[in-house]
Amino acid sequence: QLHTLLDEMNISEVAALLQEMPDEAPLLFSLLSFNRAVHVFRILDFSLQRDIIRALPPARVAELMNELPPDDRVAFLEELPPKAVSELLKLLTDEERKITLSLMGYPEDSVGRIMTPDYIAVYPDWTVQEVLKYIRQYGKNSETIDVIYVVDEEGHLLEDLRIREFLLVDPQTRVRDLMDNRATIVLHTHDKQEEAIQLFRLNNRVALPVVNEQHILLGIVTIDDVLWIADEAYEEDIQKIGGTEAFDEPYLDAPIPLLVRKRAGWLVALFLSEMLTASAMQHYQETGIFIRFADLILFIPLIMSSGGNSGSQASTLIIRAMAVGEVKLRDWWRVMRRELISGFSLGCILGAIGFLRVTLWQKMHIYNYGPHWIWMAITIFFSLIGVVLWGSLIGSMLPIVLKRLGFDPAASSAPFVATLVDVTGIVIYCTVAALVLGYSV
Amino acid sequence: QLHTLLDEMNISEVAALLQEMPDEAPLLFSLLSFNRAVHVFRILDFSLQRDIIRALPPARVAELMNELPPDDRVAFLEELPPKAVSELLKLLTDEERKITLSLMGYPEDSVGRIMTPDYIAVYPDWTVQEVLKYIRQYGKNSETIDVIYVVDEEGHLLEDLRIREFLLVDPQTRVRDLMDNRATIVLHTHDKQEEAIQLFRLNNRVALPVVNEQHILLGIVTIDDVLWIADEAYEEDIQKIGGTEAFDEPYLDAPIPLLVRKRAGWLVALFLSEMLTASAMQHYQETGIFIRFADLILFIPLIMSSGGNSGSQASTLIIRAMAVGEVKLRDWWRVMRRELISGFSLGCILGAIGFLRVTLWQKMHIYNYGPHWIWMAITIFFSLIGVVLWGSLIGSMLPIVLKRLGFDPAASSAPFVATLVDVTGIVIYCTVAALVLGYSV
Ligand SMILES: [Mg+2]
Ligand SMILES: [Mg+2]
Ligand SMILES: [Mg+2]
Ligand SMILES: [Mg+2]
Ligand SMILES: [Mg+2]
Ligand SMILES: [Mg+2]
Ligand SMILES: [Mg+2]
Ligand SMILES: [Mg+2]
Ligand SMILES: [Mg+2]
Ligand SMILES: [Mg+2]
Ligand SMILES: [Mg+2]
Ligand SMILES: [Mg+2]
Ligand SMILES: [Mg+2]
Repeated sequence: QLHTLLDEMNISEVAALLQEMPDEAPLLFSLLSFNRAVHVFRILDFSLQRDIIRALPPARVAELMNELPPDDRVAFLEELPPKAVSELLKLLTDEERKITLSLMGYPEDSVGRIMTPDYIAVYPDWTVQEVLKYIRQYGKNSETIDVIYVVDEEGHLLEDLRIREFLLVDPQTRVRDLMDNRATIVLHTHDKQEEAIQLFRLNNRVALPVVNEQHILLGIVTIDDVLWIADEAYEEDIQKIGGTEAFDEPYLDAPIPLLVRKRAGWLVALFLSEMLTASAMQHYQETGIFIRFADLILFIPLIMSSGGNSGSQASTLIIRAMAVGEVKLRDWWRVMRRELISGFSLGCILGAIGFLRVTLWQKMHIYNYGPHWIWMAITIFFSLIGVVLWGSLIGSMLPIVLKRLGFDPAASSAPFVATLVDVTGIVIYCTVAALVLGYSV
Repeated sequence: QLHTLLDEMNISEVAALLQEMPDEAPLLFSLLSFNRAVHVFRILDFSLQRDIIRALPPARVAELMNELPPDDRVAFLEELPPKAVSELLKLLTDEERKITLSLMGYPEDSVGRIMTPDYIAVYPDWTVQEVLKYIRQYGKNSETIDVIYVVDEEGHLLEDLRIREFLLVDPQTRVRDLMDNRATIVLHTHDKQEEAIQLFRLNNRVALPVVNEQHILLGIVTIDDVLWIADEAYEEDIQKIGGTEAFDEPYLDAPIPLLVRKRAGWLVALFLSEMLTASAMQHYQETGIFIRFADLILFIPLIMSSGGNSGSQASTLIIRAMAVGEVKLRDWWRVMRRELISGFSLGCILGAIGFLRVTLWQKMHIYNYGPHWIWMAITIFFSLIGVVLWGSLIGSMLPIVLKRLGFDPAASSAPFVATLVDVTGIVIYCTVAALVLGYSV
């Protein structure tokens, strides 16, 4: 009755069950009817897909691989080592292998990789009745019949029409009469997958056609794959903002050495840059300022972290605004002006609190900052203004500069910004201290 | 000819044009044919929607508001102040007002707010031919005809069927015969919008039905709205991770005082917590350790930031893993074990580099750490292990603890983690220093 139970569940429920019990997954998977097995396989995580393929008998692997939609097949293959890929390619029929190799020929993260050649194409002189008859005959093999593609004899895309347009008119109407004279929204094989997300969102589409430079229809991209990609893009950005290299594997499945390796790179790079703080402090140490005013060191962590925090706020604001297209490169001056004002205001707020803290501790005899305590409080006030202003500026400009240089703005992670700001934070603090205390005491 | 030009553009191109020239937007908007104007309005940013509504003559506002799909109408109204909302509600027909108020009665960010009551429902004893005739008659007012809903006389949802299932069978087939015996995937009015995203993705759907507790069909949610929500959820998380309150307005349009206010809250909270570092340092200052070993202070920023960086790496890894469901609350122990090992390894790497740095500077006469330099290097080695290990633990456990307490795990932003780790970083460093230097020198 496990068989019946599985049959009564939805595809997504079966997938969830397999993910929950990875050890029994291959067994449960082999109990599924073939058609349902294909649909479940598509939405499993890569590591589970791999385990299932390893456990299934070769004949069934061949069936499964051949029946999988080409885009999902490529998504699975592109994660495997080359040797395994060529083993699996051997199991495909000539036609499916040809399709697969052509998709895999497109660059990673390009639209070509996620397109499928299974769509319905019709000619403009057909009637709606002919189209519906054609769909009845060939629609089963199509990835979607929600959108119908009109092409000419050479395969040039003329228009895409939603199935509703066919259903709402008289069956004798010609396809030509359903067409409008607006340019059809298309994707190109080499477009970035992330750009496709935006097009889908703004145009309320369930599928978009993919054409080559000659405007010949090569395949379509469907919205289900776009939702997955939106999620991948999100994960990548989150990881970058947190200062790790992007990982594809589930956290709990990744081998710990891999986990360490992916993190060590950035962490060491940040550590080496942060060593500049030690050098900066050595410089000021040699001037003797920390000996004359020993209590200056108490506020080093406070002042540095304020710069880092305001910097990471500013950078995420701008990363987000650039990701959704609100801020473009040419807006850099408007951003800078806004951050000058905001950073200054925020600096004054923190500066005032810092000033108050020293004054209160002194007056309430919690700690004795010595005879020059008021100059100390003033030093802290001005340093915070400088550091917060500087943090906001660096944090907001870094994503713009990265984008200008062709890098991903999301790489200006909080740790990266904080590190940049920490070194200058020390310099600002010590300089202000030298000015205020040097002249006044 | 501006009129013709606009007519030849796609909806998304018109929307992009209006966003580019916000000052001319109301004028351009009024040149659009009414039907296209409605579709353009739906995808504009809120601030532009508001400007257009302000500029249009009242009669046209009334037309537009009535024709807008209920979910898009609610999305616009929910951003407006209450007074403006009641003004606009007055312009609606009784029926549209009733629908609008019912959607607005659902909690913010719930599925109820984004559903639309415009769908096609049919009965199980109809034939496919009857269904297609019904669609031809009433399909124009439906948000989608890609999915058809089968209900009984009392309005209970029995099944949802994709339009392709109707098109691929003989027209005399009864709807009943197309139905399977699997539970239909449904949303409930009070479900969170973010949960809907996952359901759409795993089930490859273009629309999902929304039912109440009696399983009566109330409306549907369509994928276009889900793509927008996925984007909103992404933006919210990014902002939280960066340590700002979520903003709805475009960065460049937000008034600067609002920008400051949204950032000041977190920044001040972090600043107040970070003041504990000053208190911790006061304590160690009083023990005289910074006077006996003045060069200890040189490495304070380096050591503290290493804790913060490893903490924010760990927290984003876990936030991401929890967001996609890879890590659940019950996995806390597995996460902790992995972070103990990874944190220790990363700590050893940074510790070794730190040790090397002191040794090199000393031997190459770049800086003189005094006679006890080797003990200094040892202090730094062990402190880094302690701080990085601690940062990884706090960073990974904080999102889990927040989730357990009912908060959003994404609130464990890099600045928040860094602040938590900074204070303990000082304590670890000074304690290690006291132990190593105290005993050895
Ligand atoms: Mg096929
Ligand atoms: Mg990819
Ligand atoms: Mg068209
Ligand atoms: Mg697909
Ligand atoms: Mg897929
Ligand atoms: Mg990206
Ligand atoms: Mg309507
Ligand atoms: Mg919408
Ligand atoms: Mg919302
Ligand atoms: Mg069903
Ligand atoms: Mg909608
Ligand atoms: Mg969230
Ligand atoms: Mg820091």
